[in-house]
Amino acid sequence: MSEQGITVKKSENFSEWYSQVLIKAGLVDLRYNVQGFIVHRPWLMRIIRAIYRMFEEELEKTGHEPVLFPLVIPEENFEKEKEHVEGFRAEVFWITEVGDGSEKLDRKLALRPTSETAFYYMYSYWIQSWRDLPLKLYQSVSVYRYEKNTRPLMRGREFLWIEAHDAFATHEEALQQIREDMENSRKVIWEKLGIPFLFLRRPPWDKFGGAEDTYAADTIMPDGRVLQISSTHDLGQRFAKPFNVTFLDKDGQRKYVWQTCYGPGVWRIAAALISIHGDDKGLVLPVEVAPVQVVIIPIYYKDADKEKVLGKCRRLEELLKGAGYRVQVDAREEYTPGYKFNEWELKGVPIRLEVGVKEVETNTVTVFRRDLLRKEKVSDEKLLEYIKYLEGAILEELKNRAKNFFESRIVNATSRQEVEEALRSGKIVKMPFCGREECANDLKEATDGGKIRGTEIDFKEGDYGKCAWCGAPARQIVYVAKAY
Amino acid sequence: MSEQGITVKKSENFSEWYSQVLIKAGLVDLRYNVQGFIVHRPWLMRIIRAIYRMFEEELEKTGHEPVLFPLVIPEENFEKEKEHVEGFRAEVFWITEVGDGSEKLDRKLALRPTSETAFYYMYSYWIQSWRDLPLKLYQSVSVYRYEKNTRPLMRGREFLWIEAHDAFATHEEALQQIREDMENSRKVIWEKLGIPFLFLRRPPWDKFGGAEDTYAADTIMPDGRVLQISSTHDLGQRFAKPFNVTFLDKDGQRKYVWQTCYGPGVWRIAAALISIHGDDKGLVLPVEVAPVQVVIIPIYYKDADKEKVLGKCRRLEELLKGAGYRVQVDAREEYTPGYKFNEWELKGVPIRLEVGVKEVETNTVTVFRRDLLRKEKVSDEKLLEYIKYLEGAILEELKNRAKNFFESRIVNATSRQEVEEALRSGKIVKMPFCGREECANDLKEATDGGKIRGTEIDFKEGDYGKCAWCGAPARQIVYVAKAY
Repeated sequence: MSEQGITVKKSENFSEWYSQVLIKAGLVDLRYNVQGFIVHRPWLMRIIRAIYRMFEEELEKTGHEPVLFPLVIPEENFEKEKEHVEGFRAEVFWITEVGDGSEKLDRKLALRPTSETAFYYMYSYWIQSWRDLPLKLYQSVSVYRYEKNTRPLMRGREFLWIEAHDAFATHEEALQQIREDMENSRKVIWEKLGIPFLFLRRPPWDKFGGAEDTYAADTIMPDGRVLQISSTHDLGQRFAKPFNVTFLDKDGQRKYVWQTCYGPGVWRIAAALISIHGDDKGLVLPVEVAPVQVVIIPIYYKDADKEKVLGKCRRLEELLKGAGYRVQVDAREEYTPGYKFNEWELKGVPIRLEVGVKEVETNTVTVFRRDLLRKEKVSDEKLLEYIKYLEGAILEELKNRAKNFFESRIVNATSRQEVEEALRSGKIVKMPFCGREECANDLKEATDGGKIRGTEIDFKEGDYGKCAWCGAPARQIVYVAKAY
Repeated sequence: MSEQGITVKKSENFSEWYSQVLIKAGLVDLRYNVQGFIVHRPWLMRIIRAIYRMFEEELEKTGHEPVLFPLVIPEENFEKEKEHVEGFRAEVFWITEVGDGSEKLDRKLALRPTSETAFYYMYSYWIQSWRDLPLKLYQSVSVYRYEKNTRPLMRGREFLWIEAHDAFATHEEALQQIREDMENSRKVIWEKLGIPFLFLRRPPWDKFGGAEDTYAADTIMPDGRVLQISSTHDLGQRFAKPFNVTFLDKDGQRKYVWQTCYGPGVWRIAAALISIHGDDKGLVLPVEVAPVQVVIIPIYYKDADKEKVLGKCRRLEELLKGAGYRVQVDAREEYTPGYKFNEWELKGVPIRLEVGVKEVETNTVTVFRRDLLRKEKVSDEKLLEYIKYLEGAILEELKNRAKNFFESRIVNATSRQEVEEALRSGKIVKMPFCGREECANDLKEATDGGKIRGTEIDFKEGDYGKCAWCGAPARQIVYVAKAY
């Protein structure tokens, strides 16, 4: 059993728990022979696809359209915005050769680390007049960054995400887009996946290369460190100018566009989903995202019972498939029911039906909820209704648990001692802050990595007493955390 | 109007027609500044996604599961199978540098030109016993090849496809898989997209690098040249051996697996879809694949009529959306109805509804079929039923037309003169053939590119009289064509 199941508690050793879940639940394989590049196995790919579909649906509802831009970006595009290239250059993979190596390319091609410099090159062709605005496009792709330290689904050299690139006639519309992006994140990450987050405006020294401002969603992982799972950048006109993206406005004036880009980190959202809802037995998945939503386990000990038990399993499978559920009957004969229970619990299947001779005779089904690890007897005719109910109930349960955990991890602090103590015990600190980068650097060093994550989006600067760290006049209330 | 519409006839200048459709229907943009890499615009992305979904559904029905393998393949994997590396080496893009270029990678990384050497490296871990077989996995990705001549959606340096990699305990099962792949292709390419094809076994000198045998689907483009749109390779044990992919069989013996790989060329299938069904006004799309299936055009000339006409448009939109259709009301005021008709015809929307004052007063709708360029009056209450009918009727019409064209392009030949004449007039030749590579080379040279495409899958070698080209005894009936 130790080979099959998770051997550590999530609360005691999150890092080891996470590694074991990824491997044992069949999500990834890390043995591919290029560092930082992982193999996504079917169970993970189906979860990731479900997350992609959720975002794509929300993005399209709010007027975004899908595109696909080239993977490669020529060096000259990449270098057009100074802060952008400074922020990314160290991490770029370059294609320099083709064929047997005797032929060098006439210029280096970057693998996209992010695609501003690919998109905006074309935006200068596509945007001519106010009629072409707003332009809201997105692509669902991988990006490539030569990260020194990699961790599966959190930081990788090949990283799956969505990038939406929007252009507007005015800065006001761009700022409104940041709120729309926050709302998109809320609808998918919180409403559908049950992952709570803070939506913060990053301090100026921590923004995206080439942005005026960066807003990001931070969730809290089980070990108390935060993970940025999406971000929106107010690019102002910083890319519009070097890429010459202009439009003829209604007033007859030629103007630069205002741009934003939004990046839901699909990979990291999967990491948060796994980590936040998972328990000591493995994954726990909300119904909507589960590759198999209902698994049906036949239980019989005599060959004479096989046919009637399996027959009922097949009938239930038909019933649930007919209602649109992803169902699987696990009729493998080489494994015991107990082995199968453990395997599907490890993989996080939200609902398990157990069908034995007794269930056949009494026209009932034993229904197991993965979230509560609890069984109920349900009559055959009530089953469909009950499954429908569970779909919502399981999500509610996961959301409640996640919210309670999330809120329990945020503490107020007004003194250096409180800040240090909270960060030491894996908490997120909410505190008055002077707003100075030097103070942030000092805090970070003294606390071995505590970072100012930013202010809430609607926050107004003001007089908030004294900075909890340095005692100078505080202008902001900020969140401070150690981060992935 | 000449700027908006296609200015050449498909039958007179297919190449120019194709270029104009791609640009004017908003499918691609070729101005991205890296040769052979194109921008996929929303209209094309939606078509391509629909094609992906169709294949993914069929693949999953037949036991394939989705995975995602790394983009990069280390040089040592890539070089493990001799004929494979010979077949692809000249076309590989190599990543050699990171960051500012001062740091070279310790070994070169290939961008996948195809992923046998990535998948099979992992198959040696995943396949241990007969219980692990068959293993059937696929990924939906782009591949990268440094092609000298590129043509959008037909041959590119970034090319969209699916690759399925299957492993079996016996060669018989592998051969059966080739038939399943053919059937998958038939269900999607012919049944759903209405693109006819020949499924041929390529001659030995024209197979995939590393394959025992290659089978491929060839369709016929409007200019009479054939386009390979999918292929399946019988890899035998050629990769199993260097990658050491073995399994413990039921008889206690350790054996090498038998492998196949299947590549539906999603990009090329989109090219064929555009080219074969399109007409002189632009794209013509089957309903299932159309990004917008029904467009509704309000027609009014007096402001007083605006509200009632638009009101009816919105009601029809609701009705059709409720029935699951992708519908758009084109209420733009800056364009005339005539301009809109042309635009949506160019983009291939299969069904157009025209709603004017008369339609409001008589409770009818004018329904325009893009395939027949014909209008019908339909009563409001019959509309939904009629649209449902059109869905099948339009596909049938497109299939019939495509089939008639396809069949008209294949001619029998028994002499060198007939072969030359047929190829000159853009036909595909079916002829007895001696089976010799030298004869194939001679034919190709003499006919300026006529290629032996292969024999039908169930074809048996025998005595077929004399080779139409060289007069030697014929052992096969082959198809000969000029190809993209």
